[in-house]
Amino acid sequence: MSGATQPDLELAASLFDALSRATRRGRGIVRDTYGAGEQTAHDIARSAASAVGLETSVDAIGNLFMTLPGRDRAAPRIIMGSHLDSVPQGGNFDGAAGVVAGLSVLSAMQRARVVPSYDLSVMAIRAEESAWFDVAYVGSAGAFGLLDPACLSVARSDNGQSLESTLKQRGFDPHPIRERRRLLDPARIRAYLELHIEQGPTLVARGLPAAVVSGIRGCKRFRNARCTGAYAHSGAVARPYRRDAVAATVAFLHHMETVWVERERAGADLVLTAGELFTDPAMHGPSKIAGETRFVLDIRGLSETTMNEVADEARAAAVRIGAAYRVTIDLGAATDSPAAMMDERLRAALMSRLERPFEMASGAGHDAAVFAKVGIPSAMIFVRNDHGSHNADESMSLEDFGVGARALLELLLEFPL
Amino acid sequence: MSGATQPDLELAASLFDALSRATRRGRGIVRDTYGAGEQTAHDIARSAASAVGLETSVDAIGNLFMTLPGRDRAAPRIIMGSHLDSVPQGGNFDGAAGVVAGLSVLSAMQRARVVPSYDLSVMAIRAEESAWFDVAYVGSAGAFGLLDPACLSVARSDNGQSLESTLKQRGFDPHPIRERRRLLDPARIRAYLELHIEQGPTLVARGLPAAVVSGIRGCKRFRNARCTGAYAHSGAVARPYRRDAVAATVAFLHHMETVWVERERAGADLVLTAGELFTDPAMHGPSKIAGETRFVLDIRGLSETTMNEVADEARAAAVRIGAAYRVTIDLGAATDSPAAMMDERLRAALMSRLERPFEMASGAGHDAAVFAKVGIPSAMIFVRNDHGSHNADESMSLEDFGVGARALLELLLEFPL
Repeated sequence: MSGATQPDLELAASLFDALSRATRRGRGIVRDTYGAGEQTAHDIARSAASAVGLETSVDAIGNLFMTLPGRDRAAPRIIMGSHLDSVPQGGNFDGAAGVVAGLSVLSAMQRARVVPSYDLSVMAIRAEESAWFDVAYVGSAGAFGLLDPACLSVARSDNGQSLESTLKQRGFDPHPIRERRRLLDPARIRAYLELHIEQGPTLVARGLPAAVVSGIRGCKRFRNARCTGAYAHSGAVARPYRRDAVAATVAFLHHMETVWVERERAGADLVLTAGELFTDPAMHGPSKIAGETRFVLDIRGLSETTMNEVADEARAAAVRIGAAYRVTIDLGAATDSPAAMMDERLRAALMSRLERPFEMASGAGHDAAVFAKVGIPSAMIFVRNDHGSHNADESMSLEDFGVGARALLELLLEFPL
Repeated sequence: MSGATQPDLELAASLFDALSRATRRGRGIVRDTYGAGEQTAHDIARSAASAVGLETSVDAIGNLFMTLPGRDRAAPRIIMGSHLDSVPQGGNFDGAAGVVAGLSVLSAMQRARVVPSYDLSVMAIRAEESAWFDVAYVGSAGAFGLLDPACLSVARSDNGQSLESTLKQRGFDPHPIRERRRLLDPARIRAYLELHIEQGPTLVARGLPAAVVSGIRGCKRFRNARCTGAYAHSGAVARPYRRDAVAATVAFLHHMETVWVERERAGADLVLTAGELFTDPAMHGPSKIAGETRFVLDIRGLSETTMNEVADEARAAAVRIGAAYRVTIDLGAATDSPAAMMDERLRAALMSRLERPFEMASGAGHDAAVFAKVGIPSAMIFVRNDHGSHNADESMSLEDFGVGARALLELLLEFPL
């Protein structure tokens, strides 16, 4: 393939503008999962695709495919994509940027009259966010028959309607989910490529427009950790006799921070967070040593080995520090979601296309993790974005978007690598 | 003086028993401040004092004096005492032990027909606990004209009745409090001596029956400390870009613990406590870095200089650690209650009377602090007590009590030193 050198940034600009105008409610964006907002975004994407001359189709659960037909239509295709739903009062770019990037790439190819060897599709994926229904990846996991059918009875957070009834109301079919039936065959997908805004501040801080994603971090989370000591008078009990739950929890979490720093220095990908930590308000008193704390310890990284080692280290530290402070630190059970590594060759190919190559892990989950899980070589490009995501202040420049979309286009034009 | 060698422990045993029988409600003791429970305890003490042959009198605000007359009745007297009220569901010994000790000492002198050079009084002090009315030391501070008259309108926690109306209902007179009028002249009190159970575990842990109190710790408390960072995705934000309020608070409190340990090693009397620490439950989420914590930092010690230095060190650490973690740690204003040192000569005299001399600070407040504040040489003896105080499980043996009461008796017999 050759002939197209730049993604269609005019189309991209007009799509971002149309999406913003049609789905902004107050300050933020509302593209509610399987609701009117998401549907509006799908309608905008579909009509733009048709205008560009792409084939369009919608699967049983509402995923939209916009395809530039290849010479060999029976050959495995490449899918570019992301989701079009948003969290309540979200931003214009989380999700949508990946769909718009695919369309800007295919539009450029179409204009340059490039006929690819096989089909190139943009997939506008349904229902990635778990903000409306407490289920993530409904569109992508559903397409691969990976959803637990029990999710069909999950109620939408704002109106209480079940996922099943919502699907039917939109004219979609819950049966494939109920039967764990595949709508996409992984063997017929050559690769999955997803452009997404970065949801953290790394690229802003480093002054880089885009990055290649090394993998999507897994998460091991001690959701119900608890430290139990003994309530006592803060003035009357000397240090050697205290069973101070706050002091012990502080010592434990401080130790885990040093573990993190050491692992990071040794090159590991790791983030540790205690996002919740609290003494019992019912037991608060002006002169009390706290007898209990509850907290969450969230361990994320690209390596299962590292996460397991850090979790083991946390368990050992809980025992050791608990004994030293005469308290019990019970971390409880850990929930587990595995990491998803992006494809080595695709990562290398994308890196070679960045003027200032930079690779980083994704801390948040993405549909790409689902494609990787079923064995499809998958890759992601992050585009610089200020103010984080999932809020009205997401801020991505069209220029930075162009850097990411161009890397996608160049990769497609030289595929297979 | 001489002739009496042992405090009257039979009287003590019968008084503890009578107090327990008359004021136990369920598991715990209820001697409600200026209520029926406290009055019952005063009645028991007064009739025991009369039976022993002591003079009794009650002042305008209900403090009961039980006196062994001296040869020179115009000379300054010695007061022994403590309070007879308890917290709700408290124990039998907190407060009462000091009154019983005084009576057991005077009873022994009376039996031995010792006539002291000057009056020796036991003062059953009213209303030391702030559990019923949110005012501490009503009896002792009121007797020295030190109470803020505004306290008269404070409502009792269980029935809402004001202190003023409660006083009147009991037949007492709120005017001295309203007019900040002294009922006791410090110049006419030679010394104040108070026996009290230890409210912490030190004597149990050290296997000692009693200790001399060096002083009553003051308290400097940052009641409304707050750490403000930024909420963000726990997976998506790398360490150098986080503004994690929990991590910063943990680092701050951990630093303050090292400050404490160092000061303690250098010989300072100090306790540090963060009895409350919490993230905002309304902002909790499964994948969130916490953007805010609130906490209390309670600094207690015998030395104002040490407490001030530690408070300064906390303020400096808040700035330094806040900057390192890209958050703001605002300790807010500190409330202040000064330390009260016990009299050097009395401490030394009591120490010389203990078989295994041991001196320790009191972390909780006591009426002795009020006597010390008005310049009266004051001293305290702690008696070993298991399970802390302010609960039904207070546990003091009569044998340990005897060790403390005997030290009191011996001190009196050899006074002036």
